[in-house]
Amino acid sequence: MYDFSADMIDCATAIEVALGNQLSAAQLSGPGPAAKRLVAAMRYGSLNGGKRLRPLLVRQAAAIFQVPANQTLTAGLAVEMVHCYSLIHDDLPAMDDDDLRRGRPTVHKAYDEATAILAGDALLTQAFALLAEPQCHPDPVVRIALVTELAKGSGGGGMVGGQMRDIEGEQDIFSGDDISAMQAMKTGALIRASVRMGAILGGADARGLAVLTAYAEAAGRAFQLADDILDVTTSAAAMGKATGKDADMGKQTLVNILGIDGARQHLSNTVAAALSALRTFGPKADGLRATARYFASRES
Amino acid sequence: MYDFSADMIDCATAIEVALGNQLSAAQLSGPGPAAKRLVAAMRYGSLNGGKRLRPLLVRQAAAIFQVPANQTLTAGLAVEMVHCYSLIHDDLPAMDDDDLRRGRPTVHKAYDEATAILAGDALLTQAFALLAEPQCHPDPVVRIALVTELAKGSGGGGMVGGQMRDIEGEQDIFSGDDISAMQAMKTGALIRASVRMGAILGGADARGLAVLTAYAEAAGRAFQLADDILDVTTSAAAMGKATGKDADMGKQTLVNILGIDGARQHLSNTVAAALSALRTFGPKADGLRATARYFASRES
Repeated sequence: MYDFSADMIDCATAIEVALGNQLSAAQLSGPGPAAKRLVAAMRYGSLNGGKRLRPLLVRQAAAIFQVPANQTLTAGLAVEMVHCYSLIHDDLPAMDDDDLRRGRPTVHKAYDEATAILAGDALLTQAFALLAEPQCHPDPVVRIALVTELAKGSGGGGMVGGQMRDIEGEQDIFSGDDISAMQAMKTGALIRASVRMGAILGGADARGLAVLTAYAEAAGRAFQLADDILDVTTSAAAMGKATGKDADMGKQTLVNILGIDGARQHLSNTVAAALSALRTFGPKADGLRATARYFASRES
Repeated sequence: MYDFSADMIDCATAIEVALGNQLSAAQLSGPGPAAKRLVAAMRYGSLNGGKRLRPLLVRQAAAIFQVPANQTLTAGLAVEMVHCYSLIHDDLPAMDDDDLRRGRPTVHKAYDEATAILAGDALLTQAFALLAEPQCHPDPVVRIALVTELAKGSGGGGMVGGQMRDIEGEQDIFSGDDISAMQAMKTGALIRASVRMGAILGGADARGLAVLTAYAEAAGRAFQLADDILDVTTSAAAMGKATGKDADMGKQTLVNILGIDGARQHLSNTVAAALSALRTFGPKADGLRATARYFASRES
């Protein structure tokens, strides 16, 4: 019987420990030792007791193909570093201008803007260095496929492109479809990459990859919908960051367009679509099923 | 007889064309199409008629092993994208705060800070996507080695770490050794990675790689020394960017410590060291020899 809480805690603990080990002047060494202030800011921006949902998705997707959890750790670490870098850059004054993240000052507040920009750059770069290491997977063909997947998910046609569209959207009137397309890139692309990286580690065939991609895209939509609902229903204290902010900035979300009840119904349908995609896999996909349900439960 | 000018122009032209092709919404696609504004800013920040010295080094190092120039193009493109991203981020108000680059407004001036941050992030990410493509090299083992090399050269223990130390150095008193160590990371690490990536494309053995690394480290020092000398001897108009700026910011350089004549002598010795490292290769290394001499000639 799959135990979601135990799996999530085990994964989060493993990632926290591995991040702590990887983010040291010695591990980050290139031609020279990494600057102490840089390493400190990278650690501050990533060692924060996060839920590590993206590494969990890597692990759960790989579990379908009987890949042991510890063999997904390096790929999960790389995805998490990209996620952490994106939060550091998104919080910058020129972007979302957030002072708080998980109830703590954001990296540019705790350090300074230059350090935050560089810490983000270094985390992104280190993610690719990690995927290239043999510990990630013994087969270089698999490691290269992981590099491609993470780059596509996090680059101009993925996460970064979505953030750009989101910023542009503050000026323009967005339709529901525009918002969905933007969110599919901004938050969906890295969730999609996480699931696909797990499938790649498991040696999934084209059919398996397509099915898991369909799951990931639905799960990503559910994640974002729950986040948008939370933004209007929860207090800042409970979230550990500024809330009600989307509306304050005149930013369109699907909740504005569908209303709270409509958004909740849409969320429920989206989770059903994610679960339906996993039909062929039987109990091996219970991890991914539990995560899709967890994404939705965040809104209550 | 090796013709440096012809080689440099041929390489710069090939890189300009390839960057133009690669930096399009279609080529940058991930789960979604890249945002138009993002693509425009990435093009603005890279399609600038630069000398493309780093791709030239990749090509010249690979030429020692008879690798045709066109087979070094993708790796050269990746290094150049990393170089361009680093300039975009370094020019930001929170970093060096430069309004001009090559006589044109910097990316955050022509667009805005958020767009400049994201364009840099997307260029860095796209560099790794390119190295993972089969067009880069048919052997995935080689492509993975290139990913490692570029990540080490540009990350926390390389270029980004050097930029962090440089910023810290504005507050602290730096010794000549501190400055050399910082510059070896800030500008030296990517020059080193470029030469080593050419050697990797050429299948260099450990001895060849060590010799070319010694060349690259000396050439990188020469490049930076010439730049520091230029900063105090040339007008802003001739450089196309702000000059005399290091002294204005109270930033220590080797020119402050050695004086102009001392710095010129040191530059001459450094080029001699770079050339001496290439002894074993004979005329096949004439390209790298010419580039080391070119780096030094920039100061006159």
